[in-house]
Amino acid sequence: MTDHELAGELVAAAAPPGPRVPVVGMVGAGQLARMTCQAAVGLGIGFRVLAAAADESAAQVCAGTQIGDHRLLDDLLAFGGGCDVVTFDHEHVPAAHLRALERAGLRVRPGPGALRYAQDKRAMRERLAGLGVACPRSARVTCLDDVTGFADGSGWPVVLKAVIGGYDGRGVWVCRGPAEAADVLSHGIDLLVEEHVAFERELAVLVARSPSGQAAVYPVVQTIQQDGICREVLAPAPRLAEVTAVVAEQLGIVIADAVGVTGMLAVELFETPDGLLVNELAMRPHNSGHWTIEGARTSQFEQHLRAVLDLPLGMPGLAARHAVMVNVLGGDDPDLLSRLVHVMAADPGVKVHLYGKAVRPGRKVGHVTALGDDVEDLRDRAGRAAAYLSHGAERP
Amino acid sequence: MTDHELAGELVAAAAPPGPRVPVVGMVGAGQLARMTCQAAVGLGIGFRVLAAAADESAAQVCAGTQIGDHRLLDDLLAFGGGCDVVTFDHEHVPAAHLRALERAGLRVRPGPGALRYAQDKRAMRERLAGLGVACPRSARVTCLDDVTGFADGSGWPVVLKAVIGGYDGRGVWVCRGPAEAADVLSHGIDLLVEEHVAFERELAVLVARSPSGQAAVYPVVQTIQQDGICREVLAPAPRLAEVTAVVAEQLGIVIADAVGVTGMLAVELFETPDGLLVNELAMRPHNSGHWTIEGARTSQFEQHLRAVLDLPLGMPGLAARHAVMVNVLGGDDPDLLSRLVHVMAADPGVKVHLYGKAVRPGRKVGHVTALGDDVEDLRDRAGRAAAYLSHGAERP
Repeated sequence: MTDHELAGELVAAAAPPGPRVPVVGMVGAGQLARMTCQAAVGLGIGFRVLAAAADESAAQVCAGTQIGDHRLLDDLLAFGGGCDVVTFDHEHVPAAHLRALERAGLRVRPGPGALRYAQDKRAMRERLAGLGVACPRSARVTCLDDVTGFADGSGWPVVLKAVIGGYDGRGVWVCRGPAEAADVLSHGIDLLVEEHVAFERELAVLVARSPSGQAAVYPVVQTIQQDGICREVLAPAPRLAEVTAVVAEQLGIVIADAVGVTGMLAVELFETPDGLLVNELAMRPHNSGHWTIEGARTSQFEQHLRAVLDLPLGMPGLAARHAVMVNVLGGDDPDLLSRLVHVMAADPGVKVHLYGKAVRPGRKVGHVTALGDDVEDLRDRAGRAAAYLSHGAERP
Repeated sequence: MTDHELAGELVAAAAPPGPRVPVVGMVGAGQLARMTCQAAVGLGIGFRVLAAAADESAAQVCAGTQIGDHRLLDDLLAFGGGCDVVTFDHEHVPAAHLRALERAGLRVRPGPGALRYAQDKRAMRERLAGLGVACPRSARVTCLDDVTGFADGSGWPVVLKAVIGGYDGRGVWVCRGPAEAADVLSHGIDLLVEEHVAFERELAVLVARSPSGQAAVYPVVQTIQQDGICREVLAPAPRLAEVTAVVAEQLGIVIADAVGVTGMLAVELFETPDGLLVNELAMRPHNSGHWTIEGARTSQFEQHLRAVLDLPLGMPGLAARHAVMVNVLGGDDPDLLSRLVHVMAADPGVKVHLYGKAVRPGRKVGHVTALGDDVEDLRDRAGRAAAYLSHGAERP
């Protein structure tokens, strides 16, 4: 077939296929967009991504990939013009652009009014305080005196956070004393200081909320981080007091409703002897919900699509007694697929998800999910599979 | 992080993506290819489809869609040239083309030697007879005397089948007498006659087999057909005698091995008072395995990809006590999505899969899966959802 014939075919094929299906456009083409693309296939809706480059994770698999820059309003407008709803795989689209998209008549979900609280940590802290939600103590800082003054009350270490643009541990610095704080301050970025919470563990609660106000809460999970990066998620959080689970779920719903999020909201929590503190908010499918692809009746990715399209939400309940998800981080050897064969042979019951990303040390390149009755066995199995994919060795 | 730093990140991310990933090319772009495409996303492999038109089910969602004609060897060679493995969503590629692809050095899985038994019902019957596998009595027919002679032994009705090219009840005619048989014979196609089996129910067993010879068998399911089209699948087959389950599974493995299939093999069975009879073979993911997407630890679509890539196979076991799948057939009103909202609201626990196909009465346009403990409850729920998607009314 010649190129000419191919073009003719494509034009013919574009004939009206009956009622138009709604199109969701996701800005950003990382693994969250990739897994959302996968969920869109089953819903029979249209799905597009705005990718910076054709080799990005979601761009490799999405039939509706458009190349563009999420920092350029023209690119966003051109992308959004072909979509019924615009949503996001990250929080980096400038707020002014989000408002301009809305002024242009596009449905932006979550909208700028909600996304502000995932983009701007100071606004988030103030909003949560206004709701009476417990958070780590925090303050704006512009100079070293501000930090040392805060530390006089909270003690060292303190945590400095970039007000805007942090994720996966980037933009977060634990400072053990004034010298380290001065170093961070020297970057000249807008900062918050927060107390360093001596938490017992970290939890997360995921809520989907639709424009109609319907909400669905996933079971509260435990998340285990290393160097600020999520390594492991246990669903449901083991040995969680019933009252704590209810408080966490209610926190999720109250926050989702108060900020008016549409789509997925992730609330990262610290469990402390004195109760729960809200650490961070994210308004998109979230690493703490990857287990839902196999482990819940409705995955967070399908749920996000249902929510932003204002479709009724799916059941968020567990599909097994326990689900464990372990992230696969890049190691020194980029040849993931040569190790995949051994992981598949060693444990045919775990589910491996690879993101198609170039392997770099420490980069999230996939995850492994295991479902079953014994959480420690699942941690062992998913952990072994993920470690082997990273390093080709037993737990390096 | 500043925009400048972020841009640096993006440029770095566009660096060479490391080792080349294997590419599976599927000839055909129906719903089987669509769901295989969805499974390929998680495996991190490349996936392409050869579609007749860009609006076909899989072509809508596959980033690697190529337009071409599976009946033209040049199109097949051009498509296969970019793939590490060529596989199929249907059995309609001419056998001579399959052999030519192999001669051109392409990995064709399943290969022509195996596919012959899914393409040519006479060859299939002869091969199964050679294996000692029980089948309905059958004979070649070229004229009405052949049919009436056969019916003298078997009684009426008899079943006439196109030797080549049938599927979903097409190419199968139940003839109650010589007049009906004469009508079918007048089409001038190559035919088999078979006894009309008074079966108790229909079962199916799905087997994956890899080039290395590894096999994995899914639990035996009951299938319920209407007008030759699969309407409902119950996994596992309710109240199936243990010995019958074992016989069916062994039949699946024996046949897969004997014909040397690579990928999925579906064996359609009649359960009769005298034992199991093999009705049909299909060598691809199959309607009787759609329940595996949520209902098994490894879906038949991922399993097919693992098998044709000669990767170790995944666990085929059930992920719930029961899974029920009901097909959604097109009704008179093409606007499926306007009814989807009601189905989602009515039962947030069922899982709907839509294929993106134009709605035509009786055409398979999607399916609904429900998982749980009570098979009759699941049949009711999945059946209601599917019926509403078809007709917008309670069980028409």
